[in-house]
Amino acid sequence: MQNNQYCIIMAGGAGTRLWPISRNNCPKQFLNLDGEGRTFIRDTYDRFAKFIPKENIIIVSSAKYRDLVKEKIPEIKDENLLLEPYSRNTAPCIAYATYTILKRDPDAAMVVTPSDHIITDEDKFAETVQNALEYATANKVLMTIGVPPTRPDSNFGYIQITGGKEACNTDSAIKVKTFTEKPDKELAKVFVDSGEFFWNSGIFAWKAETIREEMEKYLPEVTRLFNGWETAIGSPAENEFISRAYTDCLKISIDYGVMEKTGIAWLYPASFGWSDIGAWESLQESMMTQDTEKNTISADRILSDGCRGNLIISKNKDKLIAVKGLENYMVIDTEDVLLICPKEDKEFKDFIAGIAMPGYEKYR
Amino acid sequence: MQNNQYCIIMAGGAGTRLWPISRNNCPKQFLNLDGEGRTFIRDTYDRFAKFIPKENIIIVSSAKYRDLVKEKIPEIKDENLLLEPYSRNTAPCIAYATYTILKRDPDAAMVVTPSDHIITDEDKFAETVQNALEYATANKVLMTIGVPPTRPDSNFGYIQITGGKEACNTDSAIKVKTFTEKPDKELAKVFVDSGEFFWNSGIFAWKAETIREEMEKYLPEVTRLFNGWETAIGSPAENEFISRAYTDCLKISIDYGVMEKTGIAWLYPASFGWSDIGAWESLQESMMTQDTEKNTISADRILSDGCRGNLIISKNKDKLIAVKGLENYMVIDTEDVLLICPKEDKEFKDFIAGIAMPGYEKYR
Repeated sequence: MQNNQYCIIMAGGAGTRLWPISRNNCPKQFLNLDGEGRTFIRDTYDRFAKFIPKENIIIVSSAKYRDLVKEKIPEIKDENLLLEPYSRNTAPCIAYATYTILKRDPDAAMVVTPSDHIITDEDKFAETVQNALEYATANKVLMTIGVPPTRPDSNFGYIQITGGKEACNTDSAIKVKTFTEKPDKELAKVFVDSGEFFWNSGIFAWKAETIREEMEKYLPEVTRLFNGWETAIGSPAENEFISRAYTDCLKISIDYGVMEKTGIAWLYPASFGWSDIGAWESLQESMMTQDTEKNTISADRILSDGCRGNLIISKNKDKLIAVKGLENYMVIDTEDVLLICPKEDKEFKDFIAGIAMPGYEKYR
Repeated sequence: MQNNQYCIIMAGGAGTRLWPISRNNCPKQFLNLDGEGRTFIRDTYDRFAKFIPKENIIIVSSAKYRDLVKEKIPEIKDENLLLEPYSRNTAPCIAYATYTILKRDPDAAMVVTPSDHIITDEDKFAETVQNALEYATANKVLMTIGVPPTRPDSNFGYIQITGGKEACNTDSAIKVKTFTEKPDKELAKVFVDSGEFFWNSGIFAWKAETIREEMEKYLPEVTRLFNGWETAIGSPAENEFISRAYTDCLKISIDYGVMEKTGIAWLYPASFGWSDIGAWESLQESMMTQDTEKNTISADRILSDGCRGNLIISKNKDKLIAVKGLENYMVIDTEDVLLICPKEDKEFKDFIAGIAMPGYEKYR
């Protein structure tokens, strides 16, 4: 393990696309989805602790999830738990973490990861991330881990590499040509068929100094809010300093704010199994068994006839699910919410935004 | 009130078409559907008690519903509660009740009624039933109360009268031409359009002696099982006598067994509001308010988009119902069952017959 390697686990998301099981007071990264006590955030932490020193693993989350993080990762030290007062997407989160790391080690290299992915070959994963970190330490690049796409999924970002189709089959860093955030299904199909694209895993590797420079270049409206970080961070004034910075900060992703614009984006191809549990559909694809008609019905007792492609979950396992003549719907039944919605609904987020209405507080 | 007028309330049905709210241990006639404590069986009893002496009102139900009947109708005397050991449809039920009444008064007239109808003009109802009873007392006929049809509903029996369309608009008895049990939707439409048909309400009026004769003529395989009724009924041997009769008895309806075959079927037109809460669809039509898109969603909190013609009920009133892009389905959510099924599903009974499987006992 190298003392100058750091890991940033981003765990502040609200997980709304997995509503109503993922809730405001317990979003998906803290959920026990397999029924055996493991959580996405715990898995993520353990996965990196194999090759990053624990004192260098930093979790960035929302202040309101402080207790949840402590519950799931009891060994996390307070100085390694950065709490954001407001959700401002990934760029401000990475800025905060980068300045924190720079204060500790100006020569640090860091890997940045979401907290809700499923990785199926952990040794390969460790190898890939270490290779990416090494490359980004030796070269001034912003490295993304790219996942070879297996279907035209419109829930992911797509990264085109230079060198065409042939360059894809390599186990080394490749220079990036373009970044495209979530295309529609048709465009996604063109991308996948071309053979020149990877999915954006949202896992990045770079030197702290490199990302600082690129952020200050492309996102000065964010970084200027952190002016004075050298003295504020780690001091008694840190909380107030961060609170003020976040209050004025815009919401912007690192992909949109930096990766799409920088001239030094590179990609390291993943050779491990990867799933982003972004939405119900991907959860079903990657974690759940399906019957011959591609239904997942999570219940001990089922009556079903003429059903196809549905995802049906009741949190009350003792409930009989009796369903007839339904195709490609998701049905999520919790103690206080019953959700029924077409599975491939692009407007899902807009639809459930309705719970922002007064009187719906307890369902958020 | 006339001492020779009797009423038979048939309350032994399992109400499976209202499953999963109507359950084996509490079928629909005993359910508190309006949330105010009233039940169909109580309403039925009170409706007849206005013009039939209470000591002449007899309830026939299943032995397993004895306590439920007593709970809903505490004033019912044991001798007026006939308990069937097995469900054998309406003909054996009416045979048992008819012999019981004949033993008390060979000259009795009787009205027979299901226990799960909704009647909206009770005075008109009383008048119609009394007229029907009077006609059936003065003339040797089997009288059915006929309801003018308002839609081509394939859940009802249809009765064609003699005299054609013109004869329908009368407030007196009309001779019946044909009885047709539940036609398909197309045929139902032909019937309704012709103007010569009524819905079979399942409410009958006749002299006890007349129905006895007709049953013995058309259903000797049923009535012979009651041979010896003159001494057995009202004696200590009644239970054993009835148990033996029902054990060997076939399941057959009075409509199919007698009304379709007899030459003395007559009809009295109903001028009161009537609904048979046979299935979820009719419950929605007659008891529930619908939004502009013809949805009934029974919940305090609703998120809904692109939905039409659905009936959605959760027994947990505090639950948020979030439903998108669903048309003409029924969704019934109870504590231990979630049912999702197209509203006009002709195979509903076959579908839910699946709960007869081993392991599904508690969902019946």
